[in-house]
Parts: sequence; structure tokens; C-alpha cells
Amino acid sequence: MSTIDARQYAVLSEVARLVASGAAGTRSALATATGMSRATVSQRVDTLIGAGLLLDGEPAGAARGRPPLTLRLNPLTGAVVAVDLGATHCRVLLTDLGGAPLAETAASIGIGEGPVPILTRVDTLLRALLEQCGRKTSDVRAISLGVPGPVDFATGTPVRPPIMPGWDGYPIPSFFADGYDAPVLVDNDVNLMALGEYAHREAVRHLLYVKVGTGIGCGIVSGGELHRGASGAAGDIGHVRVPGHEDVPCHCGNTGCIEAVASGGALVAALREAGCDVLTTRDVVRLSSEGNALARRQVRLAGQRLGEVLATAVSFHNPDLIVLGGSLAELHEDLLAEIRGVVYRRALPLATRSLAIETSLLAGRAGVEGAGRLALRHLLSPTGLARLLGDG
Amino acid sequence: MSTIDARQYAVLSEVARLVASGAAGTRSALATATGMSRATVSQRVDTLIGAGLLLDGEPAGAARGRPPLTLRLNPLTGAVVAVDLGATHCRVLLTDLGGAPLAETAASIGIGEGPVPILTRVDTLLRALLEQCGRKTSDVRAISLGVPGPVDFATGTPVRPPIMPGWDGYPIPSFFADGYDAPVLVDNDVNLMALGEYAHREAVRHLLYVKVGTGIGCGIVSGGELHRGASGAAGDIGHVRVPGHEDVPCHCGNTGCIEAVASGGALVAALREAGCDVLTTRDVVRLSSEGNALARRQVRLAGQRLGEVLATAVSFHNPDLIVLGGSLAELHEDLLAEIRGVVYRRALPLATRSLAIETSLLAGRAGVEGAGRLALRHLLSPTGLARLLGDG
Repeated sequence: MSTIDARQYAVLSEVARLVASGAAGTRSALATATGMSRATVSQRVDTLIGAGLLLDGEPAGAARGRPPLTLRLNPLTGAVVAVDLGATHCRVLLTDLGGAPLAETAASIGIGEGPVPILTRVDTLLRALLEQCGRKTSDVRAISLGVPGPVDFATGTPVRPPIMPGWDGYPIPSFFADGYDAPVLVDNDVNLMALGEYAHREAVRHLLYVKVGTGIGCGIVSGGELHRGASGAAGDIGHVRVPGHEDVPCHCGNTGCIEAVASGGALVAALREAGCDVLTTRDVVRLSSEGNALARRQVRLAGQRLGEVLATAVSFHNPDLIVLGGSLAELHEDLLAEIRGVVYRRALPLATRSLAIETSLLAGRAGVEGAGRLALRHLLSPTGLARLLGDG
Repeated sequence: MSTIDARQYAVLSEVARLVASGAAGTRSALATATGMSRATVSQRVDTLIGAGLLLDGEPAGAARGRPPLTLRLNPLTGAVVAVDLGATHCRVLLTDLGGAPLAETAASIGIGEGPVPILTRVDTLLRALLEQCGRKTSDVRAISLGVPGPVDFATGTPVRPPIMPGWDGYPIPSFFADGYDAPVLVDNDVNLMALGEYAHREAVRHLLYVKVGTGIGCGIVSGGELHRGASGAAGDIGHVRVPGHEDVPCHCGNTGCIEAVASGGALVAALREAGCDVLTTRDVVRLSSEGNALARRQVRLAGQRLGEVLATAVSFHNPDLIVLGGSLAELHEDLLAEIRGVVYRRALPLATRSLAIETSLLAGRAGVEGAGRLALRHLLSPTGLARLLGDG
């Protein structure tokens, strides 16, 4: 893009975002908000209408003379695809350009089957959703996927993901290049969960989403933006060392990692050693929910250890809100109580003054909601519009 | 500000920043870069010239006909004040509106004397600098101060600062309200050191500045912006617990804090117990620099403990660069070697792939450089221009 083009797309993006957020719903409101002339605004709006992004709606209110038309994101054309891939599940959401859900589906998968079988499955689910809504693959304007491992966000490529054998270095966007004419964004699933929760919280600027399941990870929102870090590894706290457990070996080759002493996997191991009949994290959740004292004790110990790591994260990041998600988060009576106890005792009083620690509002849908949010943000960005309008 | 005013100041800010960064140096370059008409650009430029911010300079190049005038930030009028207050030192820097240094001075202070005596001292130093440069207090356009404690940035008020008795809740900007007609920004000193180092590094987006002196603190730059957190406490890592030292009591009332086992204060205590004649961090630095084996051993142990905490910070934040500052950073041969060893061994390989760990480029001047940068950024922001132009 030349400087002039870049500026034009920045202006188009501003107009589209003002309409999307509801901040300005008519051409004259857009002229006021942007400081541009009514004629310039009309030109820009026409470009966005021509691209199928905006639509003239009902006349606004009871103004004298000809009432102005309200603008909105076009719900009739286009579609946005959000995909959440976990170790054993897959969820696909189709929304319109305003983010309103059109259709959603979920399925069980084994991520270890590798990229081509799994993405072929996603593609099949997606085509079924499109057909269900009477839309075509050519209507898809943006695709966003979350995967359970580290990702090079710029290229959409997993980087040495520990639980995704066969995916290392596979450029996920290339899989969709033939079937869809749309940008494909790939991010770590926990990052997208953080973004999904953030979008549903008012007055929160800095948020940590902590997923505690078979593994442990964290998504970071800093000042309203996802913080991915220099190589997309930000929030990978599973192998942070917990004080007091330096002798416990971890599968990573180090010792004392939080995943080795507080993850679902660690709880399964501890309970099996104590003679309990458990095989998966879900078994631990069930046993603990039934009131089994041994299981509840182990969950409380895990909470204390997580609390130690999160106290450090709070001293470092000073968030407004920590959201606890993942399968173990269901045990919030025990787990959340211990985490809160340690964090409020250990972290700096100034850092915990206005800190809330809560469980997820969206539960299993946080990832797919975040993926949808990321895709829509991209679609309305200058880069997204440049591509949509044939210059990307 | 109304919406229309806000938009106008946003445009003025864009013009001023394009000139300040060197991205556009003539009216026609500004018109190209902003997409505005030449007439509108000229109007905006005239407003900024009228306010003393911009100045027409030499004609640009050898264009045909009347060559266009180059624009620059006005070096002849106005001044920006940057102040770095430490526990025992004070540094005052005066720059022009382009950030070029006009004069600088330093003095020894005792921060515990309280706000009025110390700020009176700062004011005296500042007035001497102004006189030295032939400028008046009415020329001051922005003032920025760093202080060694947590600050509520919105109000410029220290919040329970442990080493600043008498400063808790004192609204620092009010001290300057009578003598200067300028915005006063107050921030934690380590935040400003991070900003100062960041401004001197190319191709760095995420930076941690770690100050190791009598205490231990960290300033965080995330995506080019200071991350202050929900209550301005981000980076307060002094009381993070270090694995393996859970029994060591800290002055904060908890145990195992990094400040209790790796700060200058902790080294003084350890060496005194071993019979060494040391009283201050500076004595430790001297002894260790002279090759004293006991001192070097303690410095290396401190480096290992710092490495443990920074490995966690790296897994969490995934920075491009960690800058080590503070008085102990001089001992980089021993301290830095141990920190690097532990961080590269403990943190996730993906997070350390492109990580550099270095000592400060600016040493004792990082804070005052960052303060100057903060003041200039504010001056050219929409809020800063609204105040400057009489609407703030």
C-alpha cells in the first residue's frame, strides 16, 4: 500500500468501526465524529456499501424533512468463521458481519491426527453450517482459528506445540487458500479465550485468562489488546517454577513446574498414587464434586500452588480481573477459594486493591467467541479492508 | 471537549507527530500523509505555529519554482522539564520542544525529607537551568517527574511508597500549579527508565527494565507502550517469592521475597554476617569489583535468584529485551552471567529464542530520558494540545 492508500483505508476503517460500535449511525453523525465533510463521508460510506460491508437501514427517528438513514453492518451478505480447536474438541461458529451468530456446531476430535485430517473435518463442518444458513464459501470474509499450542501469529503456524504432533511448522492458512478467498488468522486458544472473556466485561482494561485443565496456560490482555509477546509465547506459564516443590520432576525435563504439581494431569497422578480410580481430569472433577475428601484435598493443594504463581503474575501485570477457565475451574468452591487466599495474601496490596478473581462467564465457548472477535476486528482494520477491496 | 473539538485535536496531534517523527516535513508531505486538502493542512500548521510548537525552516531541496518550506518543532520557544527523583539523588533535564537537551543538572537529596523540601529543591534547580538557557518559567510546556515508589498516574500521587516517608497521598502536580502553567506528569521511576531505554532501542517492541539496587523493581513496555496495570503497580516484583528461600523473612512481613535474598540490602546483610566491612550497596559493588571472593560469591547467588524470578517474567511476558539497571548492574560480569544462565535454562525455549539480556545503555540517565520522552509524548497528544491551545 502507498501512503495515500494506507490513509484511505485508515479512514474507511474508522468509518466502519464507528458504525460497528454504534458510536455513529448516520452519515451526518459520521461527519461530526470524523471531522470530514458530508460529501467525503458519503463517498466512503458508498465504498463500504459497495463492498457489502454496510447497509442503509430504517430512517432514524422523527427528524423534520427527509429523515436520515441509519447505517449498520450488512447482516444479509458475508459471513465470519470462528474455530476453536482443543485437544479433544472442535467448535465452529458462523456469524454475520456484525458478529451476530448464524449457526454453531461442535464435535469430538483427536488433535494428534494431524493438520490435514483435522482441518478437513473443520472444513466439512463449516460447509454444512454455510449450507444450513443459505450462504456460500464465497461469502466468507474472514476465518479465525484457535489451536492448543504456541503459534507464530504472523504466519499462522504452530511452533513446536507439545500436544499437537504433526502440526509443527504447518502453515494453517494455506489449507484454506483454495476453498476460501478470505484472510485466515491463527492464534493460541488461550489467547482467544482471554479476548472472548474481555469482550464480555465492562470497565476491564487488563485481564488474565488462566486455563487449568490437563495443562496450564494464560492469555493476557493489556490495555484492551492481546499481548502475544516477542515470539507469541506470552502467557505460557505451565513451566514456571512453584516455590516449595523444586524436587518434583516435570515432563519438560525441568523440576518444580506448576504443570507438574497443579494441572489435571498432576491431580490424576497424585490420586492414583493414593489408590483412587481416576484416569482423566474429568474423573478428578467428578470425584471432587461428589465430595471425595482425598480429591478435594488435592484440588485445594493445586489451588494453593496456582495461587503462588498467580500472585507473581499479579505483582508483575497488575490486572483488573483474573478469569479462571478450563475443566478444573468447575471446582471453583475449592480451587478458587485457595487461589484467592494465596493471591490476596502474597501479592502487593496495591496490586490486589481492585482485583477480581472469577470463573469464566463463557465456559467452553470463550475460545470461539474470542476467535470471532479477532476475525471481525481484522475485517474492519485498514489491512482487512485493503484486502477486501482488492488491494491487500 | 466536544466530539468535534476532540477530532480537531486528534488531527492537530497527528500533524504535530508527523513533523516530530520526521515522517512528513512539508505542508504537501503532510497533505499526502493525512489525506487532507492542502488548505486544511495549512490551517492546522498555522494553528501549531501560532502556539509556538512548529516553525518554518529552510526551503526543502531544489524543487522547481518556489521551494516548499520545511517544518520542524520550534527549538527557539518553549521548554520541557524532566525530573528523576531517587532515594538519594535528583536529576533535572531541560529540553527544547524537539527533545534536544538544553541543560542538565544533578544533586544529592534525601527523599525522606518529604515532598515540600524536595520539590522546592527541584524548583530551585529548574529555575537555575531556565536562567542558564535564557528561558522563563512561562516557557515551560510540560513537566514530567519520576519518583521511587508506586504512583497513581492519573492524579500524580504516590500511593503508600515504602521508601518515601511523607509523600503518601501528596498530589505532586499541585506543587507546580502556581509557578508553572504546564501539565505535570508523575510516574514510577523504573517505568520511566524502561521508557528511556525503549526510546534508544531499534526493533524492540516488548521490554523489561529491571532495576537492582537497594530494592528491586521492573518497568514494562508492552507493544511500545508503558504497561502500568490497573492501579499503577505493574512491575512491582520486589516481593515475588523465589523458589528455595521460603524461610527467609522480608521487611514486608512475608517470607522468601526476591528483595530479601537478592537486593543490595540483602547482600549487605549477608556480607556483614560473614564478617565483611560493608554498609551500603555501593560497598558491595566496590568489594566485588576488587575481586573479593566472598562478595563475588554473594553477587553470583543473587544473580541466580534474580534469574529464577526473571525466568518467570520471561515465560509470562515474552519480551525481546531485558535491560538490567540499578547500582548492582555494574557487576555485570558476575550478576548478568548468572541471570542469563538461569533464564535461558528455565524459561520456555520459544520465549528465549530471540531474547537479549543486556545492561543499561543510559545507566543513571535512563530515568530522566524517559521522563523527557513522556512529557514530549503528552505535549503532542490530543489532550496535551487541547490544554496548550486553551481548552484543556
